Amino acid sequence: MVAALVGLAIVRSMETPDTPADTPAETTIAAKDWAAASAEPQYRAAVVDLLGALAYGELAAFERLAEDAKLAPSLEDKAELAAMASAEFHHFEQLRARLTTIEADPTAAMEPFAAALDEFHRQTAPSDWLEGLVKAYVGDSIASDFYREVAARLDTDTRELVLAVLDDTGHASFAVEKVRSAIEAEPRVGGRLALWARRLMGEALSQAQRVVADRDALSTMLVGGVADGFDLAEVGRMFTRITEAHTKRMAALGLSA
Amino acid sequence: MVAALVGLAIVRSMETPDTPADTPAETTIAAKDWAAASAEPQYRAAVVDLLGALAYGELAAFERLAEDAKLAPSLEDKAELAAMASAEFHHFEQLRARLTTIEADPTAAMEPFAAALDEFHRQTAPSDWLEGLVKAYVGDSIASDFYREVAARLDTDTRELVLAVLDDTGHASFAVEKVRSAIEAEPRVGGRLALWARRLMGEALSQAQRVVADRDALSTMLVGGVADGFDLAEVGRMFTRITEAHTKRMAALGLSA
Repeated sequence: MVAALVGLAIVRSMETPDTPADTPAETTIAAKDWAAASAEPQYRAAVVDLLGALAYGELAAFERLAEDAKLAPSLEDKAELAAMASAEFHHFEQLRARLTTIEADPTAAMEPFAAALDEFHRQTAPSDWLEGLVKAYVGDSIASDFYREVAARLDTDTRELVLAVLDDTGHASFAVEKVRSAIEAEPRVGGRLALWARRLMGEALSQAQRVVADRDALSTMLVGGVADGFDLAEVGRMFTRITEAHTKRMAALGLSA
Repeated sequence: MVAALVGLAIVRSMETPDTPADTPAETTIAAKDWAAASAEPQYRAAVVDLLGALAYGELAAFERLAEDAKLAPSLEDKAELAAMASAEFHHFEQLRARLTTIEADPTAAMEPFAAALDEFHRQTAPSDWLEGLVKAYVGDSIASDFYREVAARLDTDTRELVLAVLDDTGHASFAVEKVRSAIEAEPRVGGRLALWARRLMGEALSQAQRVVADRDALSTMLVGGVADGFDLAEVGRMFTRITEAHTKRMAALGLSA
């Protein structure tokens, strides 16, 4: 989910700062294909960054879900989490293939995001199966929200990829069902998991903001002048929106986050 | 690879003991489809066992490869091991689907093999990236050998599945290339890895033999009288054959196993 938040920040940086507010840049970009849109070096660099952040996010998610599968109480549950891990790996493959297609080095594109994502996962290693499920659900949901939101701002080719990757998610219902029945069976589990969900979101925001700070410098290097228009307040509002959607989902799950 | 060795033992138990040696039972079975072959309850139970052992083997391999991916020195290497893990997961999915199709409970079919396979992996957790690669290669190779060998003994439908699963392997060349260049760069690495490969095979045989001992009892329960014909000496010869193929491969890799 850090990748999603980081990606959101990058997407904001794609908007040319001198574009008037009533004719946002994404309207123009959204009508172009990659060949046309990428003629703009800033846009190209921003997409490489975005795909790099998402690709590393998917690879890291694969690793952690596979790790968390060990906590599963049954073989069926283990297989479900392994299926989620495997789906994330295939997202990674699609994003990496896209980076190669647009002649970007996938590793170079991913590396700037590795430290923050690794640190997020280190800080949020689930201590049991239910924590692992909540993490999987929260991560999947935020990623879906983000992919949907970002799609509209991208050129037609990149959008197609992002929607294809999104289309393949949907393992979340498994997690929801399991967490709900665990809370029904033992209501005080809900309190613990609510705290956990809040901690997940806190860590995600903290790492994402760390990257945003780095991004400002990195953007100056990669995207040139556009970075000067990087609007931290707007990024903050985005984070707030994402957090609100998260809070609603947690409430629906029986966790007052 | 334990799953492969265990599977081999099970396959031996499929052969009806009163069949004369010159007209082996597998000739008959190999000409039948599942509907015809499974009319024989012993054969049916043995195939359920075989698929259960292989399915758990693939799931466990997924878990360990995903775990070992953490040891990768680079993002590219990590992605390669993750790809192997994901391929194993898809094998698992195919085997599990087959168990469901033949109206066997996948979990019940897998469970008898969980302890030995888990113990194998616990005993052979790689301490570094090269050990992880050697383990991935050895496991993949033995599984391929076994799948090829077993295919001829199965009914046409089960054979088709086993060959489809086999067809999807072949990530081994990545491991071979990496291990070879590591030994070239630092020849004494070869000695350490040769010891490691020997230990892997030793643990695999030890766990497989443990299951074979259990199998004898379990077979009596599952397969009925056929278990009485269970030929431990023949299983021993099979293990020897598998070990010899392993030794040749290790020598070709520059490891005198």
